[in-house]
Amino acid sequence: MKIAVLTIGDEILIGQIVNTNAAWIGSTLSAIGARIELNLTVGDAKLDILAALEYAYSTSDVIITTGGLGPTHDDITKSCVAEYFGAELELDESILEIVRNRFEKRGKTMPPSNTGQALVPQGFEAIINSAGSAPALVLERSNKLLFVLPGVPHEMKLFMTQNVVPRLIANGGLEERVQKSLLITGIGESALQEKLEGMDHFLGENCTLAFLPNLLTLRLRITTTGPGAQNRLDSFEEWIRSKASEWIFGEGETTIEEVVGSLLRNSGNTLSIAESCSGGLVAHTITNVPGSSDYMLGGVVAYSNTAKQRLLGVNDSTLTEKGAVSKETACEMAEGAKKVFGATIGVSTTGILGPGGGTAEKPVGTVWIGIAMEGQTIAVKQQFGSDRLRNKDRVLAAVLNLIRKSLLKRDPG
Amino acid sequence: MKIAVLTIGDEILIGQIVNTNAAWIGSTLSAIGARIELNLTVGDAKLDILAALEYAYSTSDVIITTGGLGPTHDDITKSCVAEYFGAELELDESILEIVRNRFEKRGKTMPPSNTGQALVPQGFEAIINSAGSAPALVLERSNKLLFVLPGVPHEMKLFMTQNVVPRLIANGGLEERVQKSLLITGIGESALQEKLEGMDHFLGENCTLAFLPNLLTLRLRITTTGPGAQNRLDSFEEWIRSKASEWIFGEGETTIEEVVGSLLRNSGNTLSIAESCSGGLVAHTITNVPGSSDYMLGGVVAYSNTAKQRLLGVNDSTLTEKGAVSKETACEMAEGAKKVFGATIGVSTTGILGPGGGTAEKPVGTVWIGIAMEGQTIAVKQQFGSDRLRNKDRVLAAVLNLIRKSLLKRDPG
Repeated sequence: MKIAVLTIGDEILIGQIVNTNAAWIGSTLSAIGARIELNLTVGDAKLDILAALEYAYSTSDVIITTGGLGPTHDDITKSCVAEYFGAELELDESILEIVRNRFEKRGKTMPPSNTGQALVPQGFEAIINSAGSAPALVLERSNKLLFVLPGVPHEMKLFMTQNVVPRLIANGGLEERVQKSLLITGIGESALQEKLEGMDHFLGENCTLAFLPNLLTLRLRITTTGPGAQNRLDSFEEWIRSKASEWIFGEGETTIEEVVGSLLRNSGNTLSIAESCSGGLVAHTITNVPGSSDYMLGGVVAYSNTAKQRLLGVNDSTLTEKGAVSKETACEMAEGAKKVFGATIGVSTTGILGPGGGTAEKPVGTVWIGIAMEGQTIAVKQQFGSDRLRNKDRVLAAVLNLIRKSLLKRDPG
Repeated sequence: MKIAVLTIGDEILIGQIVNTNAAWIGSTLSAIGARIELNLTVGDAKLDILAALEYAYSTSDVIITTGGLGPTHDDITKSCVAEYFGAELELDESILEIVRNRFEKRGKTMPPSNTGQALVPQGFEAIINSAGSAPALVLERSNKLLFVLPGVPHEMKLFMTQNVVPRLIANGGLEERVQKSLLITGIGESALQEKLEGMDHFLGENCTLAFLPNLLTLRLRITTTGPGAQNRLDSFEEWIRSKASEWIFGEGETTIEEVVGSLLRNSGNTLSIAESCSGGLVAHTITNVPGSSDYMLGGVVAYSNTAKQRLLGVNDSTLTEKGAVSKETACEMAEGAKKVFGATIGVSTTGILGPGGGTAEKPVGTVWIGIAMEGQTIAVKQQFGSDRLRNKDRVLAAVLNLIRKSLLKRDPG
């Protein structure tokens, strides 16, 4: 069973709004083992809608349209669908009554333009909209199923969960499908691919592996389908873990800041942060986790040398002899943060994020990150690119992974 | 000239990520008077990609694809495009050299799988990627223009602005269209709508006004088309400014942190920040602006009371008598930040962002923000909702606007 989603509306095409409806439908259907193979978006133009219906029908068994069911002149989905099937529009008195009542309940008179919402193409089933005035339409013909839904997100979602999903499940033919995501940090996409040499043995039509990078982490999504899907997923996962366990920090929907937070809490540690180049981003991200005040004591954003000295106790001689971007400064900043907040772990960042400020010896993208814990302080150097905002994210990813690894090393449980 | 955008990637179909690329491309092309008539999304499956290319070619003059150019096995866009046009893939040594250099610059060896990124279909133009390893491809044939772009947003955006847009403009045939965005802060969408009562006089098919909210600010985008477009835009803008100048902080692509940065620099002020509830987000945002080290001296993330006392000098009695979330604490934090960093302006945030931690007297969403400058310190109370991450953004917006207004009040020039 192949599914196509057809979104109708100029506002999506011109980027005035982002098509979150399509994403929501995708993840909802994917969760029940239905396969979406096509998303189509066209504007409020008859010929484009007709062409898109033709294309969707030629490739798919189930077609879901959203949008264009409102009462205004640019809402033409219903008339296009009717034209595509050569169906006359007929006034459904019971729906008209319901639409009229909706207005009366709010002490308003139904505008004449809303009468159109009670028109139903011949042969179509109309489903009452419990959250708005436009009913949804369904047509089952020649083994193909068409759902015409409103575009207002909460109305569309009600129809999806109450009508579309139950009907697809009842119709049967959904694939047995299992999915799992492993979350990766500290290694790039290509390097990971190298580590997973031999994975082709597992891959095929019934087992796919997607590499989904975002700024901070990489998501490896395994999908298996058909008989024995769970077993095949389990063995593939086990194999991946045997090759890449070092970089797997979690699974599913966890974030790395949540994982780091749990590690800190479970080990009874507290954290403080001295940030120069990351400018507050590390503290911001750590404190995004609800309850982070349990282990996060605070941070200093020490952009100036004076701040590094006065608030963190970095030695004047370190700054003059080694420079603000140096191993020694990173170490003293981490120790300073630990001490001033009375935390068990102090971390630090200092570097040149660009676009300006680099030198031959310390080019843009040079970053030192430090960590002080249990009487030991280390700092590691990173070399990033020249894009300031991406560099900030890279520093963040590196710091979070350094804390994670340091806590794991200490307590392998 | 009809344009189709073809997004390639399973992760979009199954709703793992939202297709923000399509929205960005839509609004970018719309701004130059180009018309997008079709968005198509298909997964990483050869037959679906070939069918989508066929459909896009049959309806459109310009086809832009994004995604599927990475080095991994599920990146098959290039081979599909080559197959669609019956073009052989040839190794481009100069691109291979550039890709290899990118790795070497970071002290790494290029993994063999990246060799594929230097393959170019015969007859295609390859454009070097200055931000990543996958080059873009262009094919101009039989009056149709195909752009094959990577899906990584910042790489796609670079190619769009540096290559696609200039090329479409050079090709001609675009509608006369003028757009301008006014940037708004400190007022909500509905309230602004009330202030702009009477705007219907300006609106019509050739003049539209879009309200585009994002987390920090609101963008009011005026679009006029046809003869006299610029004049009509100018009068509409003048009218809007006469109604809402108080909330307009800039225009075009400026951000509020850049505007605040310029105000600080031009007035010779320096800034320091004491953050409790915002957890580093304010410092992070201020330091996103290149050159911000000129006016941003630093910040303290003081989550714990101890940190508020020790680093910012907040009085013990203030904390016990008035509480950490109070006008008095906000004022002392702002003064403390100003003093400890030796800045001319100190700002502060303290509040309960949720989801937990509220009381009857101080419910979740209660936030105080303070500012100390020129011998005066004030703090204002804000009441937000219960969504932790949205609240952080709201605190940020309020702080930035408070700094902006304080600087404007001082020096109306």
